[in-house]
Amino acid sequence: MKPRISVITIGVNDLEASLKFYRDGLGLPTEGIIGKEFEHGAVAFFDLQNGVKLALFPRADIAHDAGIEKAEPSSTEFTLGHNVMSESEVDAVMDHAVAAGARLIKPAQKSFWGGYTGYFQDPDGHLWEVVYNQAFLPED
Amino acid sequence: MKPRISVITIGVNDLEASLKFYRDGLGLPTEGIIGKEFEHGAVAFFDLQNGVKLALFPRADIAHDAGIEKAEPSSTEFTLGHNVMSESEVDAVMDHAVAAGARLIKPAQKSFWGGYTGYFQDPDGHLWEVVYNQAFLPED
Repeated sequence: MKPRISVITIGVNDLEASLKFYRDGLGLPTEGIIGKEFEHGAVAFFDLQNGVKLALFPRADIAHDAGIEKAEPSSTEFTLGHNVMSESEVDAVMDHAVAAGARLIKPAQKSFWGGYTGYFQDPDGHLWEVVYNQAFLPED
Repeated sequence: MKPRISVITIGVNDLEASLKFYRDGLGLPTEGIIGKEFEHGAVAFFDLQNGVKLALFPRADIAHDAGIEKAEPSSTEFTLGHNVMSESEVDAVMDHAVAAGARLIKPAQKSFWGGYTGYFQDPDGHLWEVVYNQAFLPED
């Protein structure tokens, strides 16, 4: 198995509301909701850097598609790390996210390992960590 | 905010067991567990294609780092999509994952949107979808 993640699909409760947050709030590029012609098929994709896609898909439809029970939301299942070039850029992204309706979870601050990070949650409680790590700067 | 995810961190209950699954079972490249010198800091990173990293981090430490309550595991919070070049490669990756100890959730089959996909779960119940999608083939 190659070390590859092509799509990161996050479970949402309200696809329209989550689309609005990610598209209009955070400003991520998307063609909007597609797949409405399929029952349990509506999804929104965002094109990220490096060819990876982020997808928003209702939790109920993840359950349906995989054939499992829908579980209660849980914010400690995963986090998405957004690395930036400087501490001031961490501050700027955190401010932007909160202005877009994100919930501020941990204001940007020095981290125990020497970086500078903050956490926010999207409308479904999913954690994003905005990170300045001198040893892992974005390449683009 | 740029459309960028640098690190996908997944919450685990047993870091050693999850490392074994991903490193020895699935064969993903890693330097193993680092950060043991920090309380709540032990983590394992895997270098994926395109410069993205996958991280294994205990759920309790995600909670500690973000300053939130640890929640119950939930398999409908997210899925990780691994796209491949053919239906037979879907079959091969699914077989490999199950041989590595993954739980078979949905055997590879034609999907409603015209692709060919299967689902497995890692030791923490996180869903991976192995996908053949003619419209979204891996570039590497």
